[in-house]
Amino acid sequence: MAFSEAQVLDVIRAEFKDTLGDTFDDDGAALPAPPGNFERVVTTDVVVEHVHFSFSLSPAQTAGYRAVLQNVSDLAAMAATPVGFVWTLAIPKHHVEAAGLSENLTGFLRGAAEAARQDGLLLFGGDLSATNGPLTCSVTAFGDAPPKRPTRAGAKAGDRIFVGRAIGASAAGLRSLLADPSQRPSESPLLVAHERPLAQIALGHAVAPLATALMDVSDGLALDLHRLVTASNVGARLHDQWQRCVASGATVDDALYGGEDYALLFTLPPTASAATLAEIDRAAGPGGELFEVGVIDADCTGVVDGEGAPIEKRGYDHFAST
Amino acid sequence: MAFSEAQVLDVIRAEFKDTLGDTFDDDGAALPAPPGNFERVVTTDVVVEHVHFSFSLSPAQTAGYRAVLQNVSDLAAMAATPVGFVWTLAIPKHHVEAAGLSENLTGFLRGAAEAARQDGLLLFGGDLSATNGPLTCSVTAFGDAPPKRPTRAGAKAGDRIFVGRAIGASAAGLRSLLADPSQRPSESPLLVAHERPLAQIALGHAVAPLATALMDVSDGLALDLHRLVTASNVGARLHDQWQRCVASGATVDDALYGGEDYALLFTLPPTASAATLAEIDRAAGPGGELFEVGVIDADCTGVVDGEGAPIEKRGYDHFAST
Repeated sequence: MAFSEAQVLDVIRAEFKDTLGDTFDDDGAALPAPPGNFERVVTTDVVVEHVHFSFSLSPAQTAGYRAVLQNVSDLAAMAATPVGFVWTLAIPKHHVEAAGLSENLTGFLRGAAEAARQDGLLLFGGDLSATNGPLTCSVTAFGDAPPKRPTRAGAKAGDRIFVGRAIGASAAGLRSLLADPSQRPSESPLLVAHERPLAQIALGHAVAPLATALMDVSDGLALDLHRLVTASNVGARLHDQWQRCVASGATVDDALYGGEDYALLFTLPPTASAATLAEIDRAAGPGGELFEVGVIDADCTGVVDGEGAPIEKRGYDHFAST
Repeated sequence: MAFSEAQVLDVIRAEFKDTLGDTFDDDGAALPAPPGNFERVVTTDVVVEHVHFSFSLSPAQTAGYRAVLQNVSDLAAMAATPVGFVWTLAIPKHHVEAAGLSENLTGFLRGAAEAARQDGLLLFGGDLSATNGPLTCSVTAFGDAPPKRPTRAGAKAGDRIFVGRAIGASAAGLRSLLADPSQRPSESPLLVAHERPLAQIALGHAVAPLATALMDVSDGLALDLHRLVTASNVGARLHDQWQRCVASGATVDDALYGGEDYALLFTLPPTASAATLAEIDRAAGPGGELFEVGVIDADCTGVVDGEGAPIEKRGYDHFAST
């Protein structure tokens, strides 16, 4: 006799005890209304074992943490304050034994609760299922965004392009793990960037009143900046010195094509003052620092480097490799 | 070279073309504010191939339809008007070929769009992933609920207990399929109840001002009525004639333990007039009809039948069988 669903729910309730919505027991939940003229925004992402994470590579907590955190970063990219989330978990039966949950599943839940607690998200509810496949966790997160938030579609010619911290670190950290899974480099900032990335919520708030476009770098600077300029119907020219935003220990390819950095990417009008930039820089948070990487140029097609050479638009595609 | 993620998205966009939210392309979406003093409610459910559906048993459309519909029924159970949904799809790679999507995946998407169109839900956005496991679809649906909606927790001693249509039909329909998958009984009402269940949205609206408790029957009358009386801190006594609510062709066990009927289950105060009941009955929709199945009795523990014998609290448990 294994644990029942009700017992699995009890474990979830215990792990989230200080960050649980009032209506957690019901099939559905009422969302608190956003304050004043704020807008309710929603984002959703799924993580799949063996695709997005592997219990053999990193501690289980990191997978749960990142499942929630990537949604929080999407909220930050909408200049929103996180409110809470719902989730579904499709769980392989071997994680639910007579004696309780596996260490990996418990770790996953604990890591998710850690991210929720860190960034102020309540767990409003969810749904559980068994699966004969990999652990699959879908998170839908809610936030409150100011009424005139920037999207990825507002960049104008002449706007300056920034990222909110050094990028490529997550991909470099993952590479170090894959190179030798038996040996975890202790205290490596690259590994921390990969396993415990931070969402730049305060930075999103700080740039919202001024930014012409705003999103996060989840799939690498190349693909995400391409998305920004495509949505804005402009092009982007990187500065000669853009590579200063490449994290120490990471490669240029890590920054362009690695992804999962969760830095904010945004454009500011050329009129932004040094004082404004200094204020925004202070909001970039722990490990955050503004890097100016280029300029919006309506005469470019896509993204080009300082010498006009195109930066390829590519990133991870879930289906292209079949 | 397989279809790319972007091409899969194009297919989704085409299938949902008349029921797509404005912000579908972004990472996140802004939700329209509920009208007046209505409350925004949310519900989420996951369906997993081989657990909740099988492409070898029913046409693929039915799986997609039911993935959305079960969330719509949760909204009906909150007396809410459906607004829209976000979803995530973890898709086995063999569904995404060079020539396009598999017939089963296309059918799944088409069935989901059919349910969305039928009940007025916009697709606001989502996330795709490959998986080396079964097709896994997580839906998070939003609705607008009136400010004083009943929950499952308000039933009082003396209240009359109703279901909004005959139940057990879905389980009986599934059983007929499992008995002989090669032969689909044509035009079988039981099969329709299983493959194309309807959510009782109008009934939810009609009972909301008066009902003391409201939920839907998704896991069988036994388990769901147990949940209602537990949440309300009362008990329930079924009438001698309660079995009149068992659908023609279904068994008592189908009604008690089968699930997936998506009828509404609610309690009304003893003062409800015959005229009120007639009005509510009209709102029960196609195939809907009120059945009075019992009475709330604070002296009972759990749920008992007309002779006082306990109705077992059991239903499908995802993990109990391991």
